[in-house]
Amino acid sequence: MIQDTQYHPLNPDSLRQVLSDLPSLAIRLGGAPSDWNIREVSDGNLNSVWLVHGPSGSLCAKQSLPHVRVDPSWKMPLDRTTFEAGWLQAVAPLVPDMVPEFLHFDPQLFLLVTACLDDHVTFTEALAKGMDPAPVASQIGRFVAQTTFHTSWRGGPFENMARLEGFFSGNTTLTRITVDLVLTDPYHDHPRNHYHPALKPLVNQLHIDPAIHRSVCHMQSQFFTAREALLHGDLHSGSVMVDRNGASVIDGEFSCIGPIGFDCGMFVASLILASFAAPTEARRNQIRQAAPIFHQSFLKAYCDEWLHSDAKTDLAPAFLTRDDAAEIQRQQQEECDRITTDTAGFAAMEIIRRLTGYAHTSHFDNLPETEKGQKQYQALSFAIQLLSDLKTAPENLFPHGKTAL
Amino acid sequence: MIQDTQYHPLNPDSLRQVLSDLPSLAIRLGGAPSDWNIREVSDGNLNSVWLVHGPSGSLCAKQSLPHVRVDPSWKMPLDRTTFEAGWLQAVAPLVPDMVPEFLHFDPQLFLLVTACLDDHVTFTEALAKGMDPAPVASQIGRFVAQTTFHTSWRGGPFENMARLEGFFSGNTTLTRITVDLVLTDPYHDHPRNHYHPALKPLVNQLHIDPAIHRSVCHMQSQFFTAREALLHGDLHSGSVMVDRNGASVIDGEFSCIGPIGFDCGMFVASLILASFAAPTEARRNQIRQAAPIFHQSFLKAYCDEWLHSDAKTDLAPAFLTRDDAAEIQRQQQEECDRITTDTAGFAAMEIIRRLTGYAHTSHFDNLPETEKGQKQYQALSFAIQLLSDLKTAPENLFPHGKTAL
Ligand SMILES: Nc1ncnc2c1ncn2[C@@H]1O[C@H](COP(=O)(O)OP(=O)(O)OP(=O)(O)O)[C@@H](O)[C@H]1O
Ligand SMILES: Nc1ncnc2c1ncn2[C@@H]1O[C@H](COP(=O)(O)OP(=O)(O)OP(=O)(O)O)[C@@H](O)[C@H]1O
Ligand SMILES: [Mg+2]
Ligand SMILES: [Mg+2]
Repeated sequence: MIQDTQYHPLNPDSLRQVLSDLPSLAIRLGGAPSDWNIREVSDGNLNSVWLVHGPSGSLCAKQSLPHVRVDPSWKMPLDRTTFEAGWLQAVAPLVPDMVPEFLHFDPQLFLLVTACLDDHVTFTEALAKGMDPAPVASQIGRFVAQTTFHTSWRGGPFENMARLEGFFSGNTTLTRITVDLVLTDPYHDHPRNHYHPALKPLVNQLHIDPAIHRSVCHMQSQFFTAREALLHGDLHSGSVMVDRNGASVIDGEFSCIGPIGFDCGMFVASLILASFAAPTEARRNQIRQAAPIFHQSFLKAYCDEWLHSDAKTDLAPAFLTRDDAAEIQRQQQEECDRITTDTAGFAAMEIIRRLTGYAHTSHFDNLPETEKGQKQYQALSFAIQLLSDLKTAPENLFPHGKTAL
Repeated sequence: MIQDTQYHPLNPDSLRQVLSDLPSLAIRLGGAPSDWNIREVSDGNLNSVWLVHGPSGSLCAKQSLPHVRVDPSWKMPLDRTTFEAGWLQAVAPLVPDMVPEFLHFDPQLFLLVTACLDDHVTFTEALAKGMDPAPVASQIGRFVAQTTFHTSWRGGPFENMARLEGFFSGNTTLTRITVDLVLTDPYHDHPRNHYHPALKPLVNQLHIDPAIHRSVCHMQSQFFTAREALLHGDLHSGSVMVDRNGASVIDGEFSCIGPIGFDCGMFVASLILASFAAPTEARRNQIRQAAPIFHQSFLKAYCDEWLHSDAKTDLAPAFLTRDDAAEIQRQQQEECDRITTDTAGFAAMEIIRRLTGYAHTSHFDNLPETEKGQKQYQALSFAIQLLSDLKTAPENLFPHGKTAL
């Protein structure tokens, strides 16, 4: 049959039809299309997501909607799955075991099909259920190191990065959301902002404190001007899925070229938020300690790649051979210190926007109102302290060992 | 007639034919095509350039060749005039009086047509003839400020810059030349390098001095990672044409997104080279003093734009209003200091490569061999001193007033 590939929002029936017309996917699922179980699992803000199971296999289908899923009046271009597909294809060769396999992209339907992560839950959910976060934190540290190093100018000829830049600079729709929701709105009165009433005095401070505003300007400048690597762009605990074997990263629709500390900061913020929401002191400490574990894992893997990568880079003069160990270590320390400061700054801004901006974290969802207000107050105070002084922020965020290589 | 727009290298006859088929250009020139005087003026390394004069007007036509003009064995893609045309169209609205008017671009022939700068000479030539460089230096300072500020994230919504980034990241052919010839080759033994025998000991130092190599690594990192603004990319004195009324900038084929100090450094390097080549002490000082004049003019114009630009920027929170003068001045000082350090570093590298790399400066061309060696030795020593210590470089390069705003 002639397939209508003009854009239309899919439902389980039309998705079944689309999949049955794609032989490789139909074979993967097995049986007849009528045998396939299709379950909508969209739990995010933006897109439709279905898990499809057939007699021999499964897959995950994600389609952009022409608006924000949870707010149809907020119109939005469809191209976000295009960038998610591009991100997945760019990083899959670097971290094949840490992303779902790419299976198909339909540019007319803006439909991305990947392997289904069966028996996985989001890291957010796993944290709520008491999972020890250390192994995942360590693995995501390696994930960020691998994906950023090899998409940076250090990881290969600059032409590679220029190609990524040409493509991902087009992702202005979702980058605009980051700019507004993460980097701007929480620092002035904005109708999209909302927060627990207990946070009122701190929110006032966010709107007027010159030290905070100075840091916000600095972090905005970093975000716009640091052409360091391809970022995931939305690396919170909801973009990480886990099972007992490890973690996979999904949902790269916010991907863009930017400062490496942005991805680090997003992930660290999730841990900090989860730790403040924890039910006991012991659990709080356990989650809290995963932040420096993530950070050390990132630093180690990043510097290892730098030292051992065989990619031809543009640091061409033979003078910086691997023998020139002291100078390389000095450069690594300098770069790691900068990434660490960015991490602290962006982590603070992510915590702040998840408590006082438009899109809140779910980590506190099940707490009674008063306790929720108290714990959010503590989390927000901590973030404000970080952002008020970026010089001391790394030490406050990662008290055990900071950036020692 | 049906015009053959497949690429072929033009000659005066075929150019005449192409122009006669373009009504707006034919009318501009006036008379019959046979009345037009076509003169080839290619004096650069890369492309064919013709000036065309008719009874009522004139124009300049520039076509890419599939190789380096001065070395047909060095093959090269044709798209460099595409980027020159894109650059011209991006900056013309910002500095309409400082670039030749864009008239036409043929993407099949890779042919760019602009207004002819009648009665102009290159700034290189004007310097050789004794022109006072101060007014041009001051004007080019404003030129760099206007073009970079308004193509940076400060000059408008970040989406503007993202669009430029999407386009200019494609200019990898000429950026590769910058990476190799300016940022890499002079710092190791490379078959393309050549230099006056008197420079031998300094060239040896360039190949082995750890302080220089450390700075080279830093400047390479800046070049690749600083996504500050749209650059001209090749702003030496040969890319500036002057008459008694002022300066125009041509030849934006190396345009790319990068650190603002790169454009500043290229121009400053030309002044420094010209000053060391000057015939008398007085002339040397006069040209030398144009460097801080350029720099002060740039800084003032850049900060003025920052303060008075009405563009909607992403520094959105209302808190940084123009009333918050002290904090804005602090931020400006910080940014100007960074641009100034970059300027010094890139100026040093440009001087070095124009004396020891592949493409030399013509400023020393008419000197007797011994004097040439002596003067180039002085210039190269000065550049090496700058590059050896980037902390003191701004003060050594701009001794009078540095970056005071
Ligand atoms: N490959 C997959 N395998 C299994 N489940 C998945 C997969 N991809 C997504 N999911 C499930 O679907 C949910 C929504 O996916 P995703 O986060 O990609 O959607 P989104 O619309 O981009 O949401 P957000 O608002 O977080 O951006 C995930 O939380 C997860 O539960
Ligand atoms: N618009 C113009 N009006 C008059 N003369 C021009 C114009 N554009 C270029 N020229 C002349 O042509 C010469 C070569 O132009 P241009 O520098 O653009 O060529 P190129 O091949 O890119 O050289 P390069 O090797 O410097 O990159 C200039 O030096 C100048 O003398
Ligand atoms: Mg998403
Ligand atoms: Mg040129």
